[in-house]
Amino acid sequence: MAPKYAPSLRSRLAPLLLSLQMGFIVVYYFCVEIENNMNGNTFSNVYPVFQDLNVIVFLGFGFLSTFLVRYGFSGSGFNLLIAVLAIQWGLILDGIESWYYRGMIRIDLRSLVVAEMCTASVLISIGAVQGKTNPVHLILMALIEVFAFVLNEWLLLTLLLVQPLDSIMVLHIFGTFFGLTVTWILYRKEAERGFEKEKFDSKTGLFSMLGTVFLWLFWPSFNSILVDHHFPERRLGAVCSTYLALAVSAVVSVAVSALSSSKGKVNPVNFQSCVLAGGVAVGVSMSAIRYPWEAMTIGLTAAGVSTIGFRYLKNHMLFAFECHDTCNVLSTHGLPGLLGWLTQLLLQIKQCDDHTAAIRYAVFHICVLFITVTVSVTMGIITGVILKWDIWRPPQDKKCFDDQGFWKFEHLAVRK
Amino acid sequence: MAPKYAPSLRSRLAPLLLSLQMGFIVVYYFCVEIENNMNGNTFSNVYPVFQDLNVIVFLGFGFLSTFLVRYGFSGSGFNLLIAVLAIQWGLILDGIESWYYRGMIRIDLRSLVVAEMCTASVLISIGAVQGKTNPVHLILMALIEVFAFVLNEWLLLTLLLVQPLDSIMVLHIFGTFFGLTVTWILYRKEAERGFEKEKFDSKTGLFSMLGTVFLWLFWPSFNSILVDHHFPERRLGAVCSTYLALAVSAVVSVAVSALSSSKGKVNPVNFQSCVLAGGVAVGVSMSAIRYPWEAMTIGLTAAGVSTIGFRYLKNHMLFAFECHDTCNVLSTHGLPGLLGWLTQLLLQIKQCDDHTAAIRYAVFHICVLFITVTVSVTMGIITGVILKWDIWRPPQDKKCFDDQGFWKFEHLAVRK
Amino acid sequence: MAPKYAPSLRSRLAPLLLSLQMGFIVVYYFCVEIENNMNGNTFSNVYPVFQDLNVIVFLGFGFLSTFLVRYGFSGSGFNLLIAVLAIQWGLILDGIESWYYRGMIRIDLRSLVVAEMCTASVLISIGAVQGKTNPVHLILMALIEVFAFVLNEWLLLTLLLVQPLDSIMVLHIFGTFFGLTVTWILYRKEAERGFEKEKFDSKTGLFSMLGTVFLWLFWPSFNSILVDHHFPERRLGAVCSTYLALAVSAVVSVAVSALSSSKGKVNPVNFQSCVLAGGVAVGVSMSAIRYPWEAMTIGLTAAGVSTIGFRYLKNHMLFAFECHDTCNVLSTHGLPGLLGWLTQLLLQIKQCDDHTAAIRYAVFHICVLFITVTVSVTMGIITGVILKWDIWRPPQDKKCFDDQGFWKFEHLAVRK
Repeated sequence: MAPKYAPSLRSRLAPLLLSLQMGFIVVYYFCVEIENNMNGNTFSNVYPVFQDLNVIVFLGFGFLSTFLVRYGFSGSGFNLLIAVLAIQWGLILDGIESWYYRGMIRIDLRSLVVAEMCTASVLISIGAVQGKTNPVHLILMALIEVFAFVLNEWLLLTLLLVQPLDSIMVLHIFGTFFGLTVTWILYRKEAERGFEKEKFDSKTGLFSMLGTVFLWLFWPSFNSILVDHHFPERRLGAVCSTYLALAVSAVVSVAVSALSSSKGKVNPVNFQSCVLAGGVAVGVSMSAIRYPWEAMTIGLTAAGVSTIGFRYLKNHMLFAFECHDTCNVLSTHGLPGLLGWLTQLLLQIKQCDDHTAAIRYAVFHICVLFITVTVSVTMGIITGVILKWDIWRPPQDKKCFDDQGFWKFEHLAVRK
Repeated sequence: MAPKYAPSLRSRLAPLLLSLQMGFIVVYYFCVEIENNMNGNTFSNVYPVFQDLNVIVFLGFGFLSTFLVRYGFSGSGFNLLIAVLAIQWGLILDGIESWYYRGMIRIDLRSLVVAEMCTASVLISIGAVQGKTNPVHLILMALIEVFAFVLNEWLLLTLLLVQPLDSIMVLHIFGTFFGLTVTWILYRKEAERGFEKEKFDSKTGLFSMLGTVFLWLFWPSFNSILVDHHFPERRLGAVCSTYLALAVSAVVSVAVSALSSSKGKVNPVNFQSCVLAGGVAVGVSMSAIRYPWEAMTIGLTAAGVSTIGFRYLKNHMLFAFECHDTCNVLSTHGLPGLLGWLTQLLLQIKQCDDHTAAIRYAVFHICVLFITVTVSVTMGIITGVILKWDIWRPPQDKKCFDDQGFWKFEHLAVRK
Repeated sequence: MAPKYAPSLRSRLAPLLLSLQMGFIVVYYFCVEIENNMNGNTFSNVYPVFQDLNVIVFLGFGFLSTFLVRYGFSGSGFNLLIAVLAIQWGLILDGIESWYYRGMIRIDLRSLVVAEMCTASVLISIGAVQGKTNPVHLILMALIEVFAFVLNEWLLLTLLLVQPLDSIMVLHIFGTFFGLTVTWILYRKEAERGFEKEKFDSKTGLFSMLGTVFLWLFWPSFNSILVDHHFPERRLGAVCSTYLALAVSAVVSVAVSALSSSKGKVNPVNFQSCVLAGGVAVGVSMSAIRYPWEAMTIGLTAAGVSTIGFRYLKNHMLFAFECHDTCNVLSTHGLPGLLGWLTQLLLQIKQCDDHTAAIRYAVFHICVLFITVTVSVTMGIITGVILKWDIWRPPQDKKCFDDQGFWKFEHLAVRK
């Protein structure tokens, strides 16, 4: 079976993985050491939240895409594979500056956290191309995107003096535009008719529910982890705002999903996509939020926009723009992220004393978005063009969304 | 299909959810702000335990009821929906006093924790009516029960000077009686023959196992979270007692379940219900426990009582009292809770120096139970009568325990 | 059905469990109390990591073996049962010395952690006999193994002055040899043809993926929990080393699994077994690792050895040595553990200044391994001989790997 694809995993994936991994080890040999001078309190304060973030990255994102009936192992397994590569790569790229000045990259929990944030943007992008790509595609995409993300962070810092916390939190917008651009370039005719195996299954759908609940639960940790630990009230603010926004999103996504369906029923995939919208929007606009009601209003708007986007935009994107977005990253991360950006703009302008300051802030804020979108779309195009190359042997249409292409299920544990 | 039910979700659920949510936002606009003066250590100490509690409320309770073959999405999804509404509502009601005196409700991690405890009592009650109700019922029930719970807490404080920690920990008893009363009023004939879809499935049963293990794992956090953080040895005591009681419960529930079955096999639903009994009982009697063996003896008795209750009481309640208790909350939370209450009485009396003090304590303790049961049963009756109204369109017998009534499974991800 | 087996659970399991449990309670009554003098900071620092360890022991190990199509409930349920018995027993045995000197065993979070570490070695051993035993076997095995593990720890301390941290971390080697010895003695002919129900199922396989991801995620907590909390930089070192080694293992196990398969596909059971190899190896060699690249190289080698072991060794062990190792504990824990031992030897020798010190260290290190293997194999033989006794009624060949032998699935929730 799978004559066209099969050799690729063996002749391309394994050598690629092994050589990448050995390359990383060589780089780490010369440039990376573990921070050996740290405050005990910091470790104990950060470690539990760091583990929450790990749950989000490896378990939440991994099991989110198990809603596809025959793609559970690829969804969760390749997620783990891509994440660990992206983190190793991100640790190197994020540390380049410190390597330049001090000759060594020192890693601690904070650098792992920053690398996982880059990784999160990769995992968002991968949601858009899920099922229509092979692991080699995903690895190349991850490597380029981590580079692009760090480049964007550096550009924002150099050109506009944007602090890391803010330049990292645009990851939702960055990841969405990157992923959409790639999937738009990789578009295939089959998508219009619907891939044979791109189906929802109510049994494996519960795994996807589990992944969603994990994401939803630990999202306050995701949003608050980079907030300065010396200001506990800011962390509390980030946690409470995210928590309330997520709560409102859950309510509104059920309501709007029931309203927009002909029989008044809730679509579980819709629910799973949109329940996070408030958390995403608050993450982007966090530094401007002062009151609970602001967070809740953002949660309400984000979930509404996201649910309506889910209902109408996916098909529209597919038929009008030939852009097949498997996990609806546009509605899940893109629209709420943009909404968060807009909210921050409005809230900051409201807090300005005079017109000049307001206009200056608006120009600054628009520039941040402009640079981010430009970098992500440009690098997305480059990635797409590279991935389009036949040398990577994309899966045939029939083999899309199918674990069988990559995983070997031996039904008898003992080979006779 | 579902001609009678379908319009309800659209014409009743969505407007109810949206208006409730907007109402909450308006109230939060006028009355709620985030605490801005806090100790960094407190935040770091409480946050990880707070997340454990979230896992219990959203994941544990949610996946516990996935043992029903076709009710997994409703079990986990509506659990989340009800929980977020109850928490928002609980934050307001719990803060009413502080609003009265200071004009503002200030929320921090502790107020979120207290609101989640109210929510836990709601989720316990919902276990009794699971499957035979629609989300509109569940929402109304949640709103009334949170109010009743806060009222009970206030009565206990005003009349008997019971501290919040103790008045919250009766939540198991409160939730059970409330839920049983409601399900008794909502009784339908069909229950006697057994609902068509009220079946256990060994595939989705593993999800329920997962939910149980999460509850079981994080139960020490549930019991210890409200213990004063300035007394680490009390927290350690609460954690160790709960841990050992849970361990003993696991052993005993397997043993008694095997003993009470004709072929000596263990019933997985029985195991899942009774494995928590020790934790529940210790939660209620925590402040009186001094030694590990006490906690273990309580765990042993609770699991025994709970398992025997599961085996014989569910049918008895159904046929003798016309009370259909879906998730066996009576055996899971009610009996262990009462046992915990009794244990506390006995232990406290033993520690009293003279007769007068002992009798005074006994009267006090009986009054606590009496008020709690009275409030929960009374409010349960009111809730039941309101829910019985046909205007909420209860699901038909055939549609009970079926996700299809509320969730729309589109099998092809793309609509052609 | 199951005429031979059924009475056993009732007439043997239940009495065994109840009498064991009551025995434990009596011992706890006389000898165990809760530590009442502790530092608040210690509690808050340890508690979240302690919960991570619980997730590993109860959830990770439990769901790892759900890959067997009809053994999910036994895999996860008996895991919990065995673990709670082993922990209670371990708390007593670990405290014997303190009981001898002070008349009382005082338990705190640290003693719970140490008891869970003993338990982890039991759960590893059980992986080797999974499916071919009944719970009575497993309980006897657990009781003897905890005793053997504590004995080994005591011997290492008395004869060689090995510190607890190091003598506990050989648990992977200890557990593997113990388990393999037992399964070798319990060998049955049927294993050669393959048990009828020893099959992988891609639906329940996702539960096993979930268990694996949980183990993988919280492994840094497992390795760092016993590191002295007064040296945060050592804990950071343990966390980062484990994290990076696990990351490399994930990459390498996919690559080598694809390389060693004829069609270049990844075997999911292989992936799940080998992804942890790096964490296991680093756990054993932790105290000698200084740089990230060392941890990564260990992770690479461990995953390679483990994957090749998985591919060729399981069948070899079965046909050549008549040793049927259900969960491949040899490749999952044994080989990586031995590799970790070897690495520590090499790294420590490299750090020695002169030949004498190096040789002295080598002799010491070889003695540690020798004593550990001797104790585990000897006690494994004793256990195997005891378990071989027909009085425990082993499951018939046909009933192996089948939940039906121990669990009763009632499909209708209400008995008519």
